[in-house]
Amino acid sequence: MTALHSLGLGIGTQNSKGEWLEVYFPCPVFNPSENLVNAINDVVECGKGNSLTTLNAKQLKAICESLREADEKDQASIAGSLSESERPVVLVLIGSDSKSQSVPEAYLKLHLISHRLAKPHSLVLDGIFGVLPNVAWTNKGAIDLEELPQRQFEARLKGKTLSVNCIDKFPRMTDYVVPNGVRIADTARVRLGAYLGEGTTIMHEGFVNFNAGTEGPNMVEGRISAGVFVGSGSDLGGGCSTMGTLSGGGNIIISVGKECLIGANAGIGIPLGDRCTVEAGLYITAGTKVVLLDDQRKPVGEARARDLAGQDDLLFRRNSTTGAVECLTNQSAVALNEALHAHN
Amino acid sequence: MTALHSLGLGIGTQNSKGEWLEVYFPCPVFNPSENLVNAINDVVECGKGNSLTTLNAKQLKAICESLREADEKDQASIAGSLSESERPVVLVLIGSDSKSQSVPEAYLKLHLISHRLAKPHSLVLDGIFGVLPNVAWTNKGAIDLEELPQRQFEARLKGKTLSVNCIDKFPRMTDYVVPNGVRIADTARVRLGAYLGEGTTIMHEGFVNFNAGTEGPNMVEGRISAGVFVGSGSDLGGGCSTMGTLSGGGNIIISVGKECLIGANAGIGIPLGDRCTVEAGLYITAGTKVVLLDDQRKPVGEARARDLAGQDDLLFRRNSTTGAVECLTNQSAVALNEALHAHN
Amino acid sequence: MTALHSLGLGIGTQNSKGEWLEVYFPCPVFNPSENLVNAINDVVECGKGNSLTTLNAKQLKAICESLREADEKDQASIAGSLSESERPVVLVLIGSDSKSQSVPEAYLKLHLISHRLAKPHSLVLDGIFGVLPNVAWTNKGAIDLEELPQRQFEARLKGKTLSVNCIDKFPRMTDYVVPNGVRIADTARVRLGAYLGEGTTIMHEGFVNFNAGTEGPNMVEGRISAGVFVGSGSDLGGGCSTMGTLSGGGNIIISVGKECLIGANAGIGIPLGDRCTVEAGLYITAGTKVVLLDDQRKPVGEARARDLAGQDDLLFRRNSTTGAVECLTNQSAVALNEALHAHN
Repeated sequence: MTALHSLGLGIGTQNSKGEWLEVYFPCPVFNPSENLVNAINDVVECGKGNSLTTLNAKQLKAICESLREADEKDQASIAGSLSESERPVVLVLIGSDSKSQSVPEAYLKLHLISHRLAKPHSLVLDGIFGVLPNVAWTNKGAIDLEELPQRQFEARLKGKTLSVNCIDKFPRMTDYVVPNGVRIADTARVRLGAYLGEGTTIMHEGFVNFNAGTEGPNMVEGRISAGVFVGSGSDLGGGCSTMGTLSGGGNIIISVGKECLIGANAGIGIPLGDRCTVEAGLYITAGTKVVLLDDQRKPVGEARARDLAGQDDLLFRRNSTTGAVECLTNQSAVALNEALHAHN
Repeated sequence: MTALHSLGLGIGTQNSKGEWLEVYFPCPVFNPSENLVNAINDVVECGKGNSLTTLNAKQLKAICESLREADEKDQASIAGSLSESERPVVLVLIGSDSKSQSVPEAYLKLHLISHRLAKPHSLVLDGIFGVLPNVAWTNKGAIDLEELPQRQFEARLKGKTLSVNCIDKFPRMTDYVVPNGVRIADTARVRLGAYLGEGTTIMHEGFVNFNAGTEGPNMVEGRISAGVFVGSGSDLGGGCSTMGTLSGGGNIIISVGKECLIGANAGIGIPLGDRCTVEAGLYITAGTKVVLLDDQRKPVGEARARDLAGQDDLLFRRNSTTGAVECLTNQSAVALNEALHAHN
Repeated sequence: MTALHSLGLGIGTQNSKGEWLEVYFPCPVFNPSENLVNAINDVVECGKGNSLTTLNAKQLKAICESLREADEKDQASIAGSLSESERPVVLVLIGSDSKSQSVPEAYLKLHLISHRLAKPHSLVLDGIFGVLPNVAWTNKGAIDLEELPQRQFEARLKGKTLSVNCIDKFPRMTDYVVPNGVRIADTARVRLGAYLGEGTTIMHEGFVNFNAGTEGPNMVEGRISAGVFVGSGSDLGGGCSTMGTLSGGGNIIISVGKECLIGANAGIGIPLGDRCTVEAGLYITAGTKVVLLDDQRKPVGEARARDLAGQDDLLFRRNSTTGAVECLTNQSAVALNEALHAHN
């Protein structure tokens, strides 16, 4: 039996054509044990590659039994419960991590990240926009967009309310996963596939895209774009911006180190090292020219912000008298000069 | 029979006094055909002006029959379905576009825009704030604000949840209209009366007011204020601002041309032409003094931003060394000088 | 009988251990009359200090009767209705205002503010984060976070939707209190404990934390952080920021006077007096160096923004040619010089 990358028993929603709209995995498994895989394999042929198998009640009961015998209590309990539902159930096995080929597979990966079983950037998510359908997320669950108008009209005729909360390829995370030790003031602003480390607070103005997140603890009142990861102890001020890899940030992957502070309404187009500060209201793009100040606050030279990417202990501000963007360091003039010349 | 501006069969909510709170038009019609109008006129006297008629089941069945005979299948089907509902039903006819006099009429116009049957600024929406009541939008539908506290208390006594999602004159668009080919990550941020062209994505931080919108395709992570229209291919970065006509923008109608980019946390108080860029974090107000740079990036002169309104191929940035706001153009010094003097 | 600070009859939610998650007070009373307190005291011993008493149907009926005899009709009616509910009911009495010791007590205080019975900063809210549990706010009411995953799974099995709208210590205000004369476009952005004066509109991008708010009328499209109070007639532009006392603002309590305008994407780290303006896109922190201009727009001197805290009739802008932050005043050079020297 080859080791598997991950697996999950999921329950989800299909449109009237039987196509998957979304899948909920109550307890996905990363790097499953041989014991677990064998127990499932006894009922459903797992194979070596990636597979998805729609399961009926009989199969689920058999899986439940096999898992129970293998002493895999958690998964056995899930299989048992699923066997009694009338909703469609699917088993997804990922042999090796590659581009997702199906909705259930893509959802399993997004679950793995939000369950903190995989970090952002550690899974292959290329092409996920092509795989995921655009869905109407409503108070009556996921609805196919083509079927929506009729459903809305029917609800109205009956005096019922059909609220459409989101029209998107990604649902909000908290309807699938609520990791322990977090607060999320407005859950509409965290997509499934976000990674929120323990001790993370996402305030009302905070936002976290998929394949992005925080190490925790963090106070987030700004926007964490797709691909951006924020180290422990760093705070993002209200309305601050991090450039994403999907748009604007180009090929540079933006990240924020530990114990940084990005001020309110500020923004970064470069990755920050540890203990960096960006003054409230200042946007640092990769091309911003920055006057470097040494540990005596004397100007030593000038650099593009991109050349300061990832360096620790920087404070960016706009001189309120001259309008020049400055970078305060805790380095001596000599050390700074060497650093500057390293980029020549 | 005079031609009509528009019409719609709607189903809605009234308060305990029988006043309209809101109306949903499943399939409103702009510039209806003579055939359609005549078929309705056979049952309900349409007249020449604007009218609203509350319809009972009997009338609706007669309209359904008349429409079917006239081969107006879509509207016939709607009338037939409405005849079986116990909710209040209304027929709105707009003879000529003028200030809305009733809630159903105002809602019909907002529907026309969101259904892409009328562009922003093409309908008379003056005085709409005075016509629309402030409503509690809840998971149990629209509720009159005076009736809300009692409803909330009653729900509590029964252990039910009455969620109040919005207290506003305008509901969110997606509970009425979901145009094809759009994504809206957080539907609370798009008001009914917004116009979203095909291929528009409104991200979580995006916002679109009524009588405003996008031509499509567009990626919108910023705020499209009332009255603002954004041309095709233009992107609004996260948290960027466009000044509205309701507040701040004065009498200038702000718009964004095609293929523009407004950077994250930037903002505009002037209309932009095509292919313009505003650097992330820079707010251009009408009064901002701007140094003009020619195609050799040499300073040629200075202008107020309002004098550059609507011009193509401009890039606005704040010089990160001098703090001056600059405008890069692709024009020669000679051409620029002529343009500047044109405003003298 | 000692006078009480406040009291309330509440109905709420407990977790499976019988711990309070939240309490809804339909009609809390600040500074209750002796008549009201005595009527309650006849049934439940009120004592002098703070107390909370879980009430059963029999007690509630007795209280209802006692209140009716005392001609306290509103509270009698509430007690009567509560006596017929199967949900847990609590009576909270606050003898003197001190640190909240229980969830019901903390909720009563938050209600008092949102009902406009107490202004922000007028109640002791210290330690409230320690008292309030972190709760999952769902379309099925408040759910204990430990009980949530099982509830989510069970809903899925039955094909039901359990939407998690918020994971936070504070619920949104409008599910508890909707004060008269307000609009709140996206209620997810106003926490219970916010104070919204009559005539306040909170647009989609607006936000109000607890123990903060507006005097009314106000148009709010920016963020009112914890502890911040905004005077009548002041407008907060889209995405603008006010530094809170919880983070960033340090010990200075930020406030905004009357008839101020904070521009879109601007921000303040100092309190403003009356009739002040901060230009769109400009962030004034306490340490910002500001060039002072007299009533002739001539530079008179320089000051730190913190030295201008609370002064009236100031206009802050960044000179778009020099990049310097300037403060326009309506004072003569002489008066300004005196003001500057006052801080030496």
